[in-house]
Amino acid sequence: MVINWTLSLNTISSNSQINPHYSREREREMEVVQVLCMNGGTGETSYANNSLLQQKVISMTIPIAEEAIANLYCNTLPRSIAIADLGCSSGPNTLFVVSELIKEVDKLRQKLGHDSPEYQVFLNDLPGNDFNTIFKSLPSFQKEMSCQLGPGAGPCLFSGTPGSFYGRLFPSNCLHFIHSSYSLHWLSQVPEGVDNNKGNIYMASTSPPCVFKAYYEQFQRDFSIFLKCRAEELVAGGRMVLTLLGRRSEDPSSKECCYIYELMAMALNDMVSEGLIEEDKVDSFNIPNYTPSPSELKFEVLKGGDFSIDRLEVSEVNWNIYDGEFNTSNGFSNDGYGVAKYIRAVAEPLLVTHFGDAIIDEVFHRYGKIIDDRISKEKTQFINLTISVTKKG
Amino acid sequence: MVINWTLSLNTISSNSQINPHYSREREREMEVVQVLCMNGGTGETSYANNSLLQQKVISMTIPIAEEAIANLYCNTLPRSIAIADLGCSSGPNTLFVVSELIKEVDKLRQKLGHDSPEYQVFLNDLPGNDFNTIFKSLPSFQKEMSCQLGPGAGPCLFSGTPGSFYGRLFPSNCLHFIHSSYSLHWLSQVPEGVDNNKGNIYMASTSPPCVFKAYYEQFQRDFSIFLKCRAEELVAGGRMVLTLLGRRSEDPSSKECCYIYELMAMALNDMVSEGLIEEDKVDSFNIPNYTPSPSELKFEVLKGGDFSIDRLEVSEVNWNIYDGEFNTSNGFSNDGYGVAKYIRAVAEPLLVTHFGDAIIDEVFHRYGKIIDDRISKEKTQFINLTISVTKKG
Repeated sequence: MVINWTLSLNTISSNSQINPHYSREREREMEVVQVLCMNGGTGETSYANNSLLQQKVISMTIPIAEEAIANLYCNTLPRSIAIADLGCSSGPNTLFVVSELIKEVDKLRQKLGHDSPEYQVFLNDLPGNDFNTIFKSLPSFQKEMSCQLGPGAGPCLFSGTPGSFYGRLFPSNCLHFIHSSYSLHWLSQVPEGVDNNKGNIYMASTSPPCVFKAYYEQFQRDFSIFLKCRAEELVAGGRMVLTLLGRRSEDPSSKECCYIYELMAMALNDMVSEGLIEEDKVDSFNIPNYTPSPSELKFEVLKGGDFSIDRLEVSEVNWNIYDGEFNTSNGFSNDGYGVAKYIRAVAEPLLVTHFGDAIIDEVFHRYGKIIDDRISKEKTQFINLTISVTKKG
Repeated sequence: MVINWTLSLNTISSNSQINPHYSREREREMEVVQVLCMNGGTGETSYANNSLLQQKVISMTIPIAEEAIANLYCNTLPRSIAIADLGCSSGPNTLFVVSELIKEVDKLRQKLGHDSPEYQVFLNDLPGNDFNTIFKSLPSFQKEMSCQLGPGAGPCLFSGTPGSFYGRLFPSNCLHFIHSSYSLHWLSQVPEGVDNNKGNIYMASTSPPCVFKAYYEQFQRDFSIFLKCRAEELVAGGRMVLTLLGRRSEDPSSKECCYIYELMAMALNDMVSEGLIEEDKVDSFNIPNYTPSPSELKFEVLKGGDFSIDRLEVSEVNWNIYDGEFNTSNGFSNDGYGVAKYIRAVAEPLLVTHFGDAIIDEVFHRYGKIIDDRISKEKTQFINLTISVTKKG
């Protein structure tokens, strides 16, 4: 998972054709791409130690990706399979999906009695992502993969590709399979025209209509650029499986997508009322997310015209991930504070950039308390959309 | 430049076919790949600040690479060009060669009136290399490239590929051009059978014949694996330009290749005689380099049979790089201490692993003093071999 936050530089010319606002927006985006990423390192508030939510979502949705790559393999029997994971981040989830996909293909090729293909894996995230840590873990990972796959399996060749997925990352017609999980709800930038979203930090029930319009249009621009770029990069018949935060309802102010940030706004506004944060600061802060409905997602894919839709699934996961299932190990605090911690792992750099780092501990303490109160009283869930598409021939 | 030090894991099975000793050597190699790299960071003793020698060699030899990529482009007019730089390290030289090669192709395609190809660049080094620093510099580098190339130029898409080049790094038939400078004189490991090289740390005039044999055989094994892997990865007609430290003489004990390490052995032996280092420690330390003669290099390429040789050039560069040319800026100390500093930048992790870090400053101080004395009395030069080859169709 990653905050994919800007258009990459090498695509400025083509993007400016798609988006006439691109040139004046570029400066803001450039600034943002330099400062934003998941919380780094391996400390208490790091993404690496607070990515159980993402892990759970991956384990829920991976059958869809396995089905897609199995179809791809059986239909085309490529001698070499190039797989890209977009927004790979740096943590325990980074290599998980790719290893499962390779194992799926290897199982099939053994069943079918074919020689193994070679596997080329591209791990993508923004340039600020900690690729060094991923790369250092590769020798032991490859050793383990080699043992698991057994003799006869083709080499698994890894590269890291730094850059925003709202721009071209790979040459034309070179990828067979693209996967992305919990990254594409991040927009390339905060939409323009949300200046009057006072007291809110995202779309909220009290936001004026123009705020919803601005967010939706930014999503449409970003997602259409994403699809256009990926259509260029995939071979005909290539497959793509994307999971992102979304909503079931057509109403963009519905609780299922806005609530988590409405509670963060409550924590911030409490601190405003106590004089700990300036009101202006909260008014000018907006989260660059968009959580589309299934029909909004479908509309963009069909509008682009490059992909056919194989599956579009909706799933949900509790805010407190393991609620009602089992008590987790791994030191995960399965309460409101635990939920606040994994939001912190992905949103802290955003908040620090805007508010400074002095108030961060206090914000997330209050946020945890508010969430803890709510989850004891109501059922709170994230909605995930997973779409599986094929590039038309 | 990089210490490319081991076979990567994903090629164990194929390498063990090539090299029957592979399985028992594997453990030593695995250990070494985890600890060795150029001196990191940007401090006084870092590689990034002590790579003027490598820069000078690149600027001397780049016309050969430009000629090769120009021929490649004109003969095949590919719509997408995949370029790999093997042993890219992390410093001011990392992106230089690639940017010159892209500019060369862009100049040609404009002259010929063709649409620009897309450029896919793979930067390779061992997993311990500082890829994060390279990746963070890419957005501004790509911006500058985009300005220099002007409108109409295809996207320049970068990936980092961690791993040893004594193993497969890329899928079959996917690269058009491979470049490597000042990396291939590093062997994959210290040769076996050099235990009796007492008082020396490399091949030296006083080394027994079996030491020369062990070094040469290790070079042959490594270089043939390198060629076999690259032949698989390059498209037919693909080009490769390699520059490495070598020698003119057929005598492997000749001063032109051994002298620099004979002087380092003097510094170490001085410290042994003063009781600062144990004698055993020096006796068991050997530098995993091999500096071949032109005919040794030619022999390996022709033996492999996958490549035809277009050019094989010998050049030299003074130890004190700018001797007799001009006084350099950049804080480079153009004396024996300066020479010792750039050897330190590439060899310090090796020495620290073997001797510990307590003695390092003293070793390099004495080494600098010894070199300073010699360069004032005699002409001291590194010999570079540059070979330009084409993969047979």
